[in-house]
Amino acid sequence: MNKALLSVLLVLVALSSAFGKYIPKTGRRIPQTMARGWGDQQIWAQTYEEGLYWSRSRNKPLMVIFHLDECPHSQALKKVMSDSNEIQKTLDEEFIVLNLVYETTDKHLSPDGQYVPRIIFVDPSMTVRADIVGPYSNRMYTYEQSDATLLIKNMAKAKKLLKSEL
Amino acid sequence: MNKALLSVLLVLVALSSAFGKYIPKTGRRIPQTMARGWGDQQIWAQTYEEGLYWSRSRNKPLMVIFHLDECPHSQALKKVMSDSNEIQKTLDEEFIVLNLVYETTDKHLSPDGQYVPRIIFVDPSMTVRADIVGPYSNRMYTYEQSDATLLIKNMAKAKKLLKSEL
Repeated sequence: MNKALLSVLLVLVALSSAFGKYIPKTGRRIPQTMARGWGDQQIWAQTYEEGLYWSRSRNKPLMVIFHLDECPHSQALKKVMSDSNEIQKTLDEEFIVLNLVYETTDKHLSPDGQYVPRIIFVDPSMTVRADIVGPYSNRMYTYEQSDATLLIKNMAKAKKLLKSEL
Repeated sequence: MNKALLSVLLVLVALSSAFGKYIPKTGRRIPQTMARGWGDQQIWAQTYEEGLYWSRSRNKPLMVIFHLDECPHSQALKKVMSDSNEIQKTLDEEFIVLNLVYETTDKHLSPDGQYVPRIIFVDPSMTVRADIVGPYSNRMYTYEQSDATLLIKNMAKAKKLLKSEL
């Protein structure tokens, strides 16, 4: 049993040493991930410009998620989305993804105002899909945790690219 | 020894289950960090706009690092900077930090062209410190791994805010 404990300790030491030497006065921090909990297996764009570029060049729609860590509605939606294999698989294979905690200067991303959580789809033609909305008329681009089915339907709508509709 | 092996396995299973269920066809990926290896203990801004906002509101200079994963010069500078306790501590306590692999549309961030690695300091007054340069006249804002001392000196220069110089 001592050997077992020792080997667990060795694994933990090996893991912690990989984090580097500098430790803030307030204690070691968990490294920030690009995913911020919305799907660690996704390849996230860092900025809107980067997302648009990837969307155009790979001909995949872009999903932009606006959220805040301190917002319980964002957290609930995050859990639903990150727990859903269907959503994660579709996003990974057929979408470009971007999550932002800070608004951009592009007003097209806030068709009915700035609030969180808010999900905006953008076509590879760089057109914001203002027509793809959630179930709430006061905040048209928000989703509650019970709206996963509608969200999946909206993802399917976003995958029908504007160009092919012409 | 079997017990030891078992407990190591248990730790690994516990760690991997924390990553969620969806696994891409190409295999599980290491989650992207905001740091991208430039300092896991830093609190990174995601976008230039976010960095400017934090810089202004906290009255700290902003360091913008442009780099690329596939660039060996970027990788060498990254190693020097992330291994240096002095640089990491100063950045964490007295700077706002942003690392980008994708150029912004703001031309002030490329005073003599777009190349990597490139380090640009921005004053909290939102003025790009084009006067803070590295040792190379052809690419004024680049640093080699042997230039850590100059970089630390330049960080000290950036800390002398423009407002206080007036």
